[in-house]
Amino acid sequence: MSEFWKTDISRVRPNEILVRGYPIEQLAKGRSFGDVVYLLLTGELPTRDEGALVEAMLVACCEHSLAAPSTDAVRFVASSGVPLQTAVAAGVSAIGDVHGGAIEPCAMLLQAAVSAARSAHDVLTALRQEKKRLPGYGHPVHDKDPRTRVLFELAEQMELTGPHVALARELEDATEAVIGKRLPLNVDGAIAALMCDMGIDPALGKSFFIIGRTPGYVAHAHEQMTQERPFKAPTYDDISYAGPDRREVPERKL
Amino acid sequence: MSEFWKTDISRVRPNEILVRGYPIEQLAKGRSFGDVVYLLLTGELPTRDEGALVEAMLVACCEHSLAAPSTDAVRFVASSGVPLQTAVAAGVSAIGDVHGGAIEPCAMLLQAAVSAARSAHDVLTALRQEKKRLPGYGHPVHDKDPRTRVLFELAEQMELTGPHVALARELEDATEAVIGKRLPLNVDGAIAALMCDMGIDPALGKSFFIIGRTPGYVAHAHEQMTQERPFKAPTYDDISYAGPDRREVPERKL
Amino acid sequence: MSEFWKTDISRVRPNEILVRGYPIEQLAKGRSFGDVVYLLLTGELPTRDEGALVEAMLVACCEHSLAAPSTDAVRFVASSGVPLQTAVAAGVSAIGDVHGGAIEPCAMLLQAAVSAARSAHDVLTALRQEKKRLPGYGHPVHDKDPRTRVLFELAEQMELTGPHVALARELEDATEAVIGKRLPLNVDGAIAALMCDMGIDPALGKSFFIIGRTPGYVAHAHEQMTQERPFKAPTYDDISYAGPDRREVPERKL
Amino acid sequence: MSEFWKTDISRVRPNEILVRGYPIEQLAKGRSFGDVVYLLLTGELPTRDEGALVEAMLVACCEHSLAAPSTDAVRFVASSGVPLQTAVAAGVSAIGDVHGGAIEPCAMLLQAAVSAARSAHDVLTALRQEKKRLPGYGHPVHDKDPRTRVLFELAEQMELTGPHVALARELEDATEAVIGKRLPLNVDGAIAALMCDMGIDPALGKSFFIIGRTPGYVAHAHEQMTQERPFKAPTYDDISYAGPDRREVPERKL
Repeated sequence: MSEFWKTDISRVRPNEILVRGYPIEQLAKGRSFGDVVYLLLTGELPTRDEGALVEAMLVACCEHSLAAPSTDAVRFVASSGVPLQTAVAAGVSAIGDVHGGAIEPCAMLLQAAVSAARSAHDVLTALRQEKKRLPGYGHPVHDKDPRTRVLFELAEQMELTGPHVALARELEDATEAVIGKRLPLNVDGAIAALMCDMGIDPALGKSFFIIGRTPGYVAHAHEQMTQERPFKAPTYDDISYAGPDRREVPERKL
Repeated sequence: MSEFWKTDISRVRPNEILVRGYPIEQLAKGRSFGDVVYLLLTGELPTRDEGALVEAMLVACCEHSLAAPSTDAVRFVASSGVPLQTAVAAGVSAIGDVHGGAIEPCAMLLQAAVSAARSAHDVLTALRQEKKRLPGYGHPVHDKDPRTRVLFELAEQMELTGPHVALARELEDATEAVIGKRLPLNVDGAIAALMCDMGIDPALGKSFFIIGRTPGYVAHAHEQMTQERPFKAPTYDDISYAGPDRREVPERKL
Repeated sequence: MSEFWKTDISRVRPNEILVRGYPIEQLAKGRSFGDVVYLLLTGELPTRDEGALVEAMLVACCEHSLAAPSTDAVRFVASSGVPLQTAVAAGVSAIGDVHGGAIEPCAMLLQAAVSAARSAHDVLTALRQEKKRLPGYGHPVHDKDPRTRVLFELAEQMELTGPHVALARELEDATEAVIGKRLPLNVDGAIAALMCDMGIDPALGKSFFIIGRTPGYVAHAHEQMTQERPFKAPTYDDISYAGPDRREVPERKL
Repeated sequence: MSEFWKTDISRVRPNEILVRGYPIEQLAKGRSFGDVVYLLLTGELPTRDEGALVEAMLVACCEHSLAAPSTDAVRFVASSGVPLQTAVAAGVSAIGDVHGGAIEPCAMLLQAAVSAARSAHDVLTALRQEKKRLPGYGHPVHDKDPRTRVLFELAEQMELTGPHVALARELEDATEAVIGKRLPLNVDGAIAALMCDMGIDPALGKSFFIIGRTPGYVAHAHEQMTQERPFKAPTYDDISYAGPDRREVPERKL
């Protein structure tokens, strides 16, 4: 057997597809999509309500209108005469460090602080001394993000909160004293805390945004393709050119 | 208000995100991911069990091991030193006409035949005369695809099957007589029939594969990044070169 | 030797890289990029000035400001905190059927007509009867496209024009009589005619746009990353929402 | 005029396209692709032979057979039933930190050392103390990379070498003494040194690889689409599964 083509994730044989060992038809019949996402990301099915919480996290990420560079990219690509998946892929590719990218560093910060038993005050003071920002806090539009609140409420009902959620809340409370203004936990930060308490690797932080926003990208690509004209672009009149004035190319031997 | 930036899908205001009119926190709390996918794709929440069936369809698409070009693309891209989303985007971009791409043409064929009240026999005879293939039938590995069976079982329990599923089954039965060998309905064909009976636009056929396989791509990208060495590629010894032998570049005035 | 990993394009061994048989250092030293593009696309080095003409075609495709969906996609993706290549890839992925995509069908039309010795008048009349558009003609901004003119001038000086360029010009002249208004040959159509006369496969039509525009995408990604703020997106105030008003999610057993 | 749509790169008006101020038809007629790449990347046309050197750098990057993850990604994506540009975009997206990605850090290291007048020995000693690697040196296949040699030869003939090339060579010589084995400058390192001596921003390091390899990706996508069967993937027999054995999904209330 090849070492080049090797995986722990799934096995295919005629009329049998095992995902992490489980027959896919049993998963399709008896388990939610959230359970299966948890299975794929961690290797095991959830034993409590983690699958339902994962679903809520994915729903919380599903849409943010055109006020998102990734979704704008989807619209422009979708207008250029390409298949659906090409436009969606452009959106996924744009889930970058400033766009869904705070989950991972926030999760790493929470994990490190919890495992070292550091207080919120100490964490913030250290960040301040290193002149680093607190990832997962603050939002350009939402100061009381409805997604943060609902995810924490659900997690509490499901008894899935732990030390990372606790620290995430303490950090929010401590921002006022240490930084001088209250920085509200945003949806990235809430997801970060919850994934840590569920034992999911921080390196998978963007996954919730990637998987959860994909249906939004599909909807935007489809709307662009069916409701708008092709070739979405500003007209040359709408574009402000700030480069050099017209100049002639100097003659030159090649 | 701009016509350039216009959408029916969602609206963002401070501390409020409406998806198709519904507050996102209500969706996250009270609805499954499948319900929200259905909402994003059709504009309305399901009134029966469509959301649960959509979830089962997504789970059925979630993984097929490395026996899939898109997943192989994910592995190679993930090995090259890029962020998680870049590798996943490469996978999504490869959901092409021969890889999840049979759903749309199968759905269009079923829709046209049902609306014209054509029999399975007539549909197959016409395809044969035009020397066209029947999309959504046959599979290189699975002749009794477990995914097809479970999706139809669930849809029947949920009373969500209709004329498109009925025709899809009749087509399978008729292949033996008209084509000479039984072509089993594959998972693409099953999804095509089910989405038609749920009233989803055939142009969205690839969506189930795009959304459903994304967690699989995430798992493969993560496995590649954490379990394998960077720069996955065959060595020069493994590559068979069939081009011209070494030859010298002719001198030439440029 | 594996059949799985097989190519005619190049061979790598320690300290030797052959491209279509030619040592890469000889190509780098003695040949232009245009020569090498021609070599990669056709399998042989040019014997006349094809490489210089290919360069001119690439330069003609290199930039069209923000008045292009692919470049807009580059800007949004580049603003989201991703590496340079991710933003450029989004641009390349958007070279779709309505954006650089007329080259291929125009080249196929010219090739078919030349090989069947059909006149411009017959070609246009047939298109009109089938209610099809003439690909490679007309432009939303340019009615005397400077790129078309310069490419044909150069090709004539280089004696690289043949029957496809001749037919492309006759078609432009014939549009007035057959269609009722003069449709000027655009840069896509000019490239289509030239690539046919150089013997390049029409299926490679988009290549000139893909290769030629890539430096433009690089410049835009770099400008976005260094001159503009991250997270380029319209504000929620700039977005016109045309979907349903706020509505409550109906309660429902899951 | 909008600040949202703003650029210094080019301006489009009817029948006029200015690139960095220069009419595109003059560039197509009188300048090489290398000149125009230099113009797009730096804002100015070269005044000496920089354009010819840029072309040689692009040619040096154009192909490395299937022994490259990005090219492998192109082949898999191209096999899945997608347009040409989709497959090429997957390749571009895979020019990651371990695949063409050494140019930028090498250029930054050279720039910093030259501007601080640090010796090769000091640079290497500092790296060793920080347990960092020397980017742009060493190659898994080539110990005397023909591309490095030819690029430096050309640059010398063109009198375009300066302090960065000098330091790059000194570093190679110093590796033996400081690290214990000679690490040869690779093509990434050579490009890094040359771009610094030409005054190109190190942040554009990957550009040469992105632009130069694109024709190679086009050739591979075309070869895959025309010479190979669709759906390139290992068969299930070729895949080594190392995950859990088959196990049943536990029943569970949802």
